[in-house]
Amino acid sequence: MQSDQPPARPVGRGAKVRAAVHAATLAELVDKGYAALSVENVAQRAGVHKTTVYRRWKDRESLLADALAEHMAMDIPVPDTGAIATDLRALARSLVQTFTSPTGQAVLAAIFTGAAHLPEIAAARRHVFDDRLARAEPVVTRAVERGELPRGTDPAELLKTLAAPIYLRLLITADPVDETTADQAVRVTLAAAHAGVLRPAHDGEPATG
Amino acid sequence: MQSDQPPARPVGRGAKVRAAVHAATLAELVDKGYAALSVENVAQRAGVHKTTVYRRWKDRESLLADALAEHMAMDIPVPDTGAIATDLRALARSLVQTFTSPTGQAVLAAIFTGAAHLPEIAAARRHVFDDRLARAEPVVTRAVERGELPRGTDPAELLKTLAAPIYLRLLITADPVDETTADQAVRVTLAAAHAGVLRPAHDGEPATG
Repeated sequence: MQSDQPPARPVGRGAKVRAAVHAATLAELVDKGYAALSVENVAQRAGVHKTTVYRRWKDRESLLADALAEHMAMDIPVPDTGAIATDLRALARSLVQTFTSPTGQAVLAAIFTGAAHLPEIAAARRHVFDDRLARAEPVVTRAVERGELPRGTDPAELLKTLAAPIYLRLLITADPVDETTADQAVRVTLAAAHAGVLRPAHDGEPATG
Repeated sequence: MQSDQPPARPVGRGAKVRAAVHAATLAELVDKGYAALSVENVAQRAGVHKTTVYRRWKDRESLLADALAEHMAMDIPVPDTGAIATDLRALARSLVQTFTSPTGQAVLAAIFTGAAHLPEIAAARRHVFDDRLARAEPVVTRAVERGELPRGTDPAELLKTLAAPIYLRLLITADPVDETTADQAVRVTLAAAHAGVLRPAHDGEPATG
């Protein structure tokens, strides 16, 4: 048998099983919550044998972490409207939508309450955030190139400033989270960016260009 | 027996027991973590019988929620330096200190991981945040009165803007949280306040004075 390297992204049976199991994991989470999540139920819902699941994931925790990472990575648009205000509004509103949808609420409950004590989940939380941040960075670099934002504006600082008030309300305060929350986050972020305070942390780089 | 109303804040044996039990609860949390927290251990550490604890708190969850609320309420200074920048810096740095101290790390781990699934703890989290917010509001109202911030600046919006990036880093990203984080939060918050975007949510009030 030839053992050529397989293509980087196979879309064969393996990928289909992964996708079906991921979808079933999220559906189980939405319907029954983290406490009731089991490999058996996920396998049944995905229409595969549970040994098929165990061949790829060692336990429900790693399955959940993997399904969450995949879901959250796919769930982010990278807008390119030609203007930073509308790009940031789209990003902030999509973050709000992600976490206020039924799936998003179930995900949030799992990663911040039910499964919050699992190291895999803490790692997935950071991974998901970093991944979304990396995907959204072009929004900021394009705006700097267009001259809409000061040179030296740090994409990560800016995007964290945008996300922070939304997460604060989702995780700590009892405030409603809606489009108003998203739009207010955009106003605060743009004010800070225009004032030139969203530079890289610990950075004293001159604003050359 | 006379049944005059007791004074509002007795500082007798009851208050001393409460304080000792609260302190013992936090000390147990720091030393052993939430999973190992028990009424027996708390009682022993506080030097009281466990029935004394059970007389005041129905279980370890309500004891923990109460101890956390008390601790977090006491742990906030309300600075009055005469300038908003230095007042906000003191507030932000104290938030950072609160959660990076050994007690703060233990509290954070308990309320966001170990005990995050308990309704009492979710309620305590909101209560603690609201309480700290209410205590800090004079910092903002005084700055508005001094003319340092635009009229119509909403104290709650401003203080949430200050706290949000710190909580984001504590709860989601793996970034270090230190004085630089606090000082950067102050810069972002002041830029937004000076740009006039920290008005009450859903508010169209004219900036009269």
